[in-house]
Amino acid sequence: MTPQNVLDLTRAVCDLESVSGAEGPLADAVESALRRLPHLEVLRDGDAVLARTALGRPERVVLAGHLDTVPINNNFPSTVVDDLIYGCGTSDMKSGVALALHLAATLPDPGYDVTYFFYEAEEIESKYNGLALVAEAHPEWLEADFAVLLEPTYGVVEAGCQGTLRALVRTHGRRAHTARAWRGVNAIHAAGEVLRRLEDYRPRTVTIDGCTYREGLNAVRISGGVAGNVVPDECTVEVNMRFAPDRTEKQALEHVQEVLEGFELELTDSAPGALPGLTAAPARDFLAAVGSEPAAKLGWTDVARFAALGIPALNYGPGDPLLAHAPDEHVEIGKIRDGAATLHRWLASPF
Amino acid sequence: MTPQNVLDLTRAVCDLESVSGAEGPLADAVESALRRLPHLEVLRDGDAVLARTALGRPERVVLAGHLDTVPINNNFPSTVVDDLIYGCGTSDMKSGVALALHLAATLPDPGYDVTYFFYEAEEIESKYNGLALVAEAHPEWLEADFAVLLEPTYGVVEAGCQGTLRALVRTHGRRAHTARAWRGVNAIHAAGEVLRRLEDYRPRTVTIDGCTYREGLNAVRISGGVAGNVVPDECTVEVNMRFAPDRTEKQALEHVQEVLEGFELELTDSAPGALPGLTAAPARDFLAAVGSEPAAKLGWTDVARFAALGIPALNYGPGDPLLAHAPDEHVEIGKIRDGAATLHRWLASPF
Repeated sequence: MTPQNVLDLTRAVCDLESVSGAEGPLADAVESALRRLPHLEVLRDGDAVLARTALGRPERVVLAGHLDTVPINNNFPSTVVDDLIYGCGTSDMKSGVALALHLAATLPDPGYDVTYFFYEAEEIESKYNGLALVAEAHPEWLEADFAVLLEPTYGVVEAGCQGTLRALVRTHGRRAHTARAWRGVNAIHAAGEVLRRLEDYRPRTVTIDGCTYREGLNAVRISGGVAGNVVPDECTVEVNMRFAPDRTEKQALEHVQEVLEGFELELTDSAPGALPGLTAAPARDFLAAVGSEPAAKLGWTDVARFAALGIPALNYGPGDPLLAHAPDEHVEIGKIRDGAATLHRWLASPF
Repeated sequence: MTPQNVLDLTRAVCDLESVSGAEGPLADAVESALRRLPHLEVLRDGDAVLARTALGRPERVVLAGHLDTVPINNNFPSTVVDDLIYGCGTSDMKSGVALALHLAATLPDPGYDVTYFFYEAEEIESKYNGLALVAEAHPEWLEADFAVLLEPTYGVVEAGCQGTLRALVRTHGRRAHTARAWRGVNAIHAAGEVLRRLEDYRPRTVTIDGCTYREGLNAVRISGGVAGNVVPDECTVEVNMRFAPDRTEKQALEHVQEVLEGFELELTDSAPGALPGLTAAPARDFLAAVGSEPAAKLGWTDVARFAALGIPALNYGPGDPLLAHAPDEHVEIGKIRDGAATLHRWLASPF
């Protein structure tokens, strides 16, 4: 791992397999590369690795990225075709991880104190999330005035994030043999009304600080049925609401309850959105360094975890978010070079 | 097994466990009991056991019953409470099997030649069905002018049976991340229209030979979904149509296709109905012996297999069909005694 050349570094990071739950070898390599840099203090817990300057600057910023990927899908190791690097994690988000490692190695004397933070298990159940675990176990490691999460945004600033909630909607009926169906009540038929309301639902579009969020309410799973000759007595529809950060989790749940009024609803999972957070001084400086208008982040990202810690945070990375988790995932070499130059410009000389 | 006392015999048959696929011990006991009867020729194939008279009567009738039960459900062995015998298979259809065994043992000189037929695997996939296997391997074993299938009918004649078909209805969409749901098409939402048509469906009621058949069209299973954050691209609804025997299988399928026009439909399973078959001479005699009006059989039963062999067949048994497969399955002792007397009256002295 030679952190000086950001493209070689991107490929090296991509070519260490690190599917969620098996980030160890990549975390080891990252830790070992960081420990060779005398200007950084290095800490580790599990497969989370943190390195930081201690220059006594008035403000501290975090560059953060998760080390894990979704399962490989005939896209490992990486390959280069023209100006594209293909492979699992190239967009989400090993090219972002490589940017942070590159800055850590090549900028010993930044204008802000900088915390570089790499962590495991962002792609799976949130109880394994390395950022959440460190925020719980060592909150002081993450203290900062601003954070940039290097998730794929295709080189633009994506501000805040939408919240997400999942709930189970259950319909009930009464079992009967299908040869005597009139003695039963069909719970799957009853779910038709749930689906009709979801089909008819018109989601809001909300603009905050110039960032436009598009909400959505979708059935993501449905199941019901007892046997091929039984009128079913239960059907379950799992719905996922993505909500703009002007709603709290509670307000979003109330909204879903209102849309599906009359049906039994069980909340199973919920994560708050994060407001754009563009007013902190380092955020304004960062926007100036990027030089383009911010957009809304529609997916849920760990910026919401930083927001919950009281740290304004943005998404900014070279990958294309539409290619995340895709078998043909790739990243443009030009976006990696631009990202490195932008971060260098911002960190080297704060405004 | 003492075939002379029909109640003891019922309990003995019930207390030999014979869940589908494990009928061997019961088939052995039945075979051994029948082989002790000098007036019968006994044949066996697999766990199907057949015994028959050869008296040179002008007409031959079959008394048939399956030996297997659904899985036991805290209802084995049998218990007697007042005038009820509780236990797995008491209604469906070991009390019917006991009637046939009792007649075989106690009526050496019937007015018809009689074939007593006991078989395995009626409650599971039709490829294992002992009646179907013998009809294929030894069709001459089953040659007869009329058959009584001793399925539970609560002591009335249930004539013919409804047909049944199952089909999968699939809706399609386009996957997308739920944070960008407008890029996708939700296949589960699209299934709402399938469920609405099923909910609105008004099934026919058809009367044939005085027997009234009630049709039904039901969703029996539904499934769809990729992951909690993905707009699903496929949803599958399994439907079960029960159709009166005035429709052929082909006509029933065309009807379902018409109801669900515009949706992809795949037929997965189909079995024809059977017309009431009340016009054969032994059937008329049997109705006279029972002395009550026949009703329509709504569930599918193996009478359709006899009908397919050109043998008119009826359902008639002491069990209550509504208790079949229930944990509190039971049979009334009075219905067993009545059944034995009726069959004896019919077989001893044809009209």
